[in-house]
Amino acid sequence: MKLTKLFSKTSRQYPKDEVSVSSQLLERAGYIDKVSAGVYTLLPLGLKTANKIANIIRDQMDKIGGQECLLPGLIPKNLLEQSSRWETFDALFKLKGVDGKEYALGATHEEIVSPLVKKYILSYKDLPFSLYQIQDKFRNEVRAKSGVLRTREFLMKDLYSFHADAKDLDRYYELVKEAYWKIFARCGIKDKTHYTFASGGDFTKYSHEFQSETEAGEDEIYVCKKCSTAVNRDILDKTFECPECKGKEYEIKKAIEVGNIFKLGTRFSTPFNLSYVDEKGRDLPVIIGCYGIGIQRLLGTIVEVHHDQKGLKWPKGVAPFAAHLIALDGAGAKADRIYEKLLAEGVEVLYDDREASAGEKFADADLAGLPWRLLVSEKTGEKIELKARGSEKTELVELGGLKGKIA
Amino acid sequence: MKLTKLFSKTSRQYPKDEVSVSSQLLERAGYIDKVSAGVYTLLPLGLKTANKIANIIRDQMDKIGGQECLLPGLIPKNLLEQSSRWETFDALFKLKGVDGKEYALGATHEEIVSPLVKKYILSYKDLPFSLYQIQDKFRNEVRAKSGVLRTREFLMKDLYSFHADAKDLDRYYELVKEAYWKIFARCGIKDKTHYTFASGGDFTKYSHEFQSETEAGEDEIYVCKKCSTAVNRDILDKTFECPECKGKEYEIKKAIEVGNIFKLGTRFSTPFNLSYVDEKGRDLPVIIGCYGIGIQRLLGTIVEVHHDQKGLKWPKGVAPFAAHLIALDGAGAKADRIYEKLLAEGVEVLYDDREASAGEKFADADLAGLPWRLLVSEKTGEKIELKARGSEKTELVELGGLKGKIA
Repeated sequence: MKLTKLFSKTSRQYPKDEVSVSSQLLERAGYIDKVSAGVYTLLPLGLKTANKIANIIRDQMDKIGGQECLLPGLIPKNLLEQSSRWETFDALFKLKGVDGKEYALGATHEEIVSPLVKKYILSYKDLPFSLYQIQDKFRNEVRAKSGVLRTREFLMKDLYSFHADAKDLDRYYELVKEAYWKIFARCGIKDKTHYTFASGGDFTKYSHEFQSETEAGEDEIYVCKKCSTAVNRDILDKTFECPECKGKEYEIKKAIEVGNIFKLGTRFSTPFNLSYVDEKGRDLPVIIGCYGIGIQRLLGTIVEVHHDQKGLKWPKGVAPFAAHLIALDGAGAKADRIYEKLLAEGVEVLYDDREASAGEKFADADLAGLPWRLLVSEKTGEKIELKARGSEKTELVELGGLKGKIA
Repeated sequence: MKLTKLFSKTSRQYPKDEVSVSSQLLERAGYIDKVSAGVYTLLPLGLKTANKIANIIRDQMDKIGGQECLLPGLIPKNLLEQSSRWETFDALFKLKGVDGKEYALGATHEEIVSPLVKKYILSYKDLPFSLYQIQDKFRNEVRAKSGVLRTREFLMKDLYSFHADAKDLDRYYELVKEAYWKIFARCGIKDKTHYTFASGGDFTKYSHEFQSETEAGEDEIYVCKKCSTAVNRDILDKTFECPECKGKEYEIKKAIEVGNIFKLGTRFSTPFNLSYVDEKGRDLPVIIGCYGIGIQRLLGTIVEVHHDQKGLKWPKGVAPFAAHLIALDGAGAKADRIYEKLLAEGVEVLYDDREASAGEKFADADLAGLPWRLLVSEKTGEKIELKARGSEKTELVELGGLKGKIA
């Protein structure tokens, strides 16, 4: 993509109404645009990054047998009444059609997925099974002031798993946990993320959150000094004991929940009569687990963890482009050739082909935060100056060896 | 994908509450699930097909310079008041947040894209330019009884283009028209689709629709017998004259609108003060075009055009899998090997590995509608019996030559 063609432009201004560093930087760098509090547009750069994240998640969900579907955003009132959540779920946006029919906008999809699965699951032979989607969610938040970290509308990956018994759910829950760690590793935030015990509802004592340390986080977590597992405030007893290693010492950290996994048990299979016939012909309730990751929140959290005062610093796996190519001092024709060559090799390049000063181009490259900066000028001759974002070290490389270095 | 693992199952029953053949077949074959009138889930097979369609569209939008973004579903009331559509746009679902803020759910996105573009377009150098998205739309329909052909929620590709003058919009409009024909050709419905003149609003006399002939269509179009261009009912004069070739004879056809293109002109640039500075320093309004395609409706229309009494008949470009592999008479081990081999070669195969009768497997393959049926039995020896959906002719082929035949 040539920068002269790219829709968004960088801005020197700090957006006045953004509190979180991630949203300030994403707005300044032209990744997102704020429509109103908690409502954002993903601009071309932002969508490309969100798609990288979504595909990392998809890959892991597919590996644990999840099948992707797309459930509707409109959830009919009767389904939310059946689960007794129409009145009790605070965050629902509610609306009425011209025919008088009422809906809530999907904030989570147990009420859609449970009756759906009931149509297809008949016997123990159909279990276990899991369905997921990456879909637009809506939350009627009282306040939405943390930028993309807490929004009224966002893409979410929600996975639902269905099991014959609690033991099989336990087995799958561990698989999801491992998949989540791989996702957070590929997104570059694993080291800052704590597996966090939270309250679990009726079916199990605990649910679990993945909480990433950041000053912009709205949560406080209690992190075991010995094993780095955490508990959230809801379940902190007067005296701390780590549920994982029984350690007694902890630190308090500000954090943001980037994922959660929850054993729902029969919470939704009971109201929706979701049962299966076992080997002995008995009718038994299906045991359900649910597992969420918010895409924009994860995007924002990656930025919270990976940035400096100059701008974004994308981990390789999620960067919208691998490299930022800059042409200086009338080296445009040479840069054009390199750009075409890299495109033909399948390297994703953002090419700053503007007529602008070196200082402006360098500043914008730092702000955009791609992993590699490629500089072509009269000084670099037939070679290209390569620099990693966040490093001051530069290196002159041949075009032939470039792909191997940056891909 | 193995059929024993696939979530959805086929059904012999015709859904009682579906009128359109497309939705009956898509439901019976396990592609979609009806949640309530006008609200559907895309099941794994349906989502895979919708993604194929979406990627065909993406490919064409990218080729005409469209940049993909993702605009929000929540549109703040003040923006719809600015364009005077809050009260006049019938199909809006409206809702209110806990903070009292009001929104409509996006039925179309001029009110989001116009103020967005205003932030980035400054001068004639930034024009022309186009942005698109494939995003969930909501329409508060009074009636929704044509299955996926008219729904209250659906994925839509909406493209918006921005120009310095009407002439440049005219130029781009023709590009979009050609892109649309390529999309409908790849989706297998070009031959049944008519370029249709419709009313155009204040800026131009006409807008244009792409109307596909089908008995399930809710529109009536007047098709020129000479050149196959059509006009819709809104603009039919007392005497017919084809706006394209001036032909005087026409036929009336039932049809469904699968796409539309519209010259908005200054309809939205005026209320949103979207202007640019020209070469002479004058401030001029940006000229806008908009171009839509509904994904689920296109999916349903493809089925309306391509089916028989046995089931779906997907055109190659949109089929969720290229081939339906069936193992009979204890040929399971051989079929397993063929399945693994084809997967390794990148061929998309749906593998019926169930313990079921030949009749049941054949019927389900016809219902699912994949372009090729591959049969492995004791009779086929080391070879595979290949049959195209909709043909009775079978052919025995070697595994080595299979990919070339079906890919």
